[in-house]
Amino acid sequence: MRDINQFTITEAVKKSFRTEEGSRFKFLLESLIDHLHDYTRETNLTHEEWMRVLMFLYDCGKISTPERHEFILLSDVLGFSALVDMINTRGGATEGSNLGPFYLDNAPRKPLGADLAGPRQGVSVLCHGVVRDTLGHPIPGAIVDTWQADGSGTYPIQEEGQDKYDLRGLFEADDQGRYYYTTILPKPYTVPYDGPVGELLRAGDRHSWRASHLHYMIRAEGMRGIVTEVFFENTEYVDNDAVFGVRRSLIAKLEPYKAAKAGDFPLERQPDAMINFDFVLAPGD
Amino acid sequence: MRDINQFTITEAVKKSFRTEEGSRFKFLLESLIDHLHDYTRETNLTHEEWMRVLMFLYDCGKISTPERHEFILLSDVLGFSALVDMINTRGGATEGSNLGPFYLDNAPRKPLGADLAGPRQGVSVLCHGVVRDTLGHPIPGAIVDTWQADGSGTYPIQEEGQDKYDLRGLFEADDQGRYYYTTILPKPYTVPYDGPVGELLRAGDRHSWRASHLHYMIRAEGMRGIVTEVFFENTEYVDNDAVFGVRRSLIAKLEPYKAAKAGDFPLERQPDAMINFDFVLAPGD
Repeated sequence: MRDINQFTITEAVKKSFRTEEGSRFKFLLESLIDHLHDYTRETNLTHEEWMRVLMFLYDCGKISTPERHEFILLSDVLGFSALVDMINTRGGATEGSNLGPFYLDNAPRKPLGADLAGPRQGVSVLCHGVVRDTLGHPIPGAIVDTWQADGSGTYPIQEEGQDKYDLRGLFEADDQGRYYYTTILPKPYTVPYDGPVGELLRAGDRHSWRASHLHYMIRAEGMRGIVTEVFFENTEYVDNDAVFGVRRSLIAKLEPYKAAKAGDFPLERQPDAMINFDFVLAPGD
Repeated sequence: MRDINQFTITEAVKKSFRTEEGSRFKFLLESLIDHLHDYTRETNLTHEEWMRVLMFLYDCGKISTPERHEFILLSDVLGFSALVDMINTRGGATEGSNLGPFYLDNAPRKPLGADLAGPRQGVSVLCHGVVRDTLGHPIPGAIVDTWQADGSGTYPIQEEGQDKYDLRGLFEADDQGRYYYTTILPKPYTVPYDGPVGELLRAGDRHSWRASHLHYMIRAEGMRGIVTEVFFENTEYVDNDAVFGVRRSLIAKLEPYKAAKAGDFPLERQPDAMINFDFVLAPGD
């Protein structure tokens, strides 16, 4: 290895990892080493720039906590998260979109028709639709797990003194695969920009706003679950979301509430508006 | 941006950064986004793998301190540091090698001929040579800043109760460009392997040993300074150093000490062995 140079070092590093021939780990690692080294050679990276990159990662580590994961945020603003969502979307299924940092895996189970907003201020909206498979058949019993920001763009989990399970609900689709509940329209909010990723955004003259959205995790027995977001037509940032979460197929239309059109659901609260959004799951592996 | 897909997202992310046209920042950032996205597409990275990568970075951040920089270590074991050293070596100059984590910018100034080892156990060795420019002319007054591990592979800075300035010295070359001092031979040591990078090494069935070496930072008025390491022929790990620091041109030969051959220097301590290593600096920018 004493004879390595800037061209042969890449193979030397790959060989130093004695990983299982043909394994996924070997493939991921070797491709990573190739890209890292190609990047370094193509840019003729200086020592100062190299140290800047490493200090940036160090600073991301320092500001991170279990509730504030700066590396996920970095992945988000570089479109890495969105790209992973895109390539993992199955044909015919609803497109995936950002999980984000606020998911809780033990959201309270709620009956269909429940209201998630309670006394909160905002535009009350009925969210309804059908969970189907890729052949168009409804999936009775599908689980619709949702979470969202409030009418000022804040998640209850972000504010002291609030119940972190507020504005969350886990619903079971009825025998026609239908889900329905009321909530308030969430508002846009900024991703955290007081850390290294915020500095990066400012250096690139980028804003930190997310288009307003509802988060969904949908799953059903024997089907491949999806994590996605639903956005609203004609709302702010829907064309320049800071984390590249919006897809045309994920934009829902807000309409005035009409019971007849909605399907005459039994609702806990009378809504002002409604959106209709169907989810499609592909078969599991 | 609502129409982005897994192929068009890369341009969309690049465009979102409104960086100065033709700037170095724009070039570095866009090339990074290209490689990151190409990697993701080429590997069809799953959500689980994506999260694994982000948690790995998170864990590197958590174990890092100003004294334990896990991202530099990661850069080292992936050959990223060595590659940056290689591409920044100027033609004709001594090849660069790892700075490592133990450099101190205020090492004690010592007179030529001084001994760095004091009462420490080990093989006493004379280190001597000439600092030259790329035309072969000696550089009187060149600064030779050196630091090293002891005879058991430990840097004094790593052990409580030891003087962190031990086994360090900053020498000024004489009017013939010569430097000379005695010390003890350092031993091989392992890079820290109790963190995420250690896990990576184990996953790749790699050892964590560095070939024994002396660190040098050489500088002189009007010249481009270098950071490098000097290794020893026929010592352990010189052909499979964990951080890819060894180059053939940086391997010195250990010989029995002979005053006449060395140059008959005035020495504070009579050495057992000697190495002769000349440094070459290229002109500054």
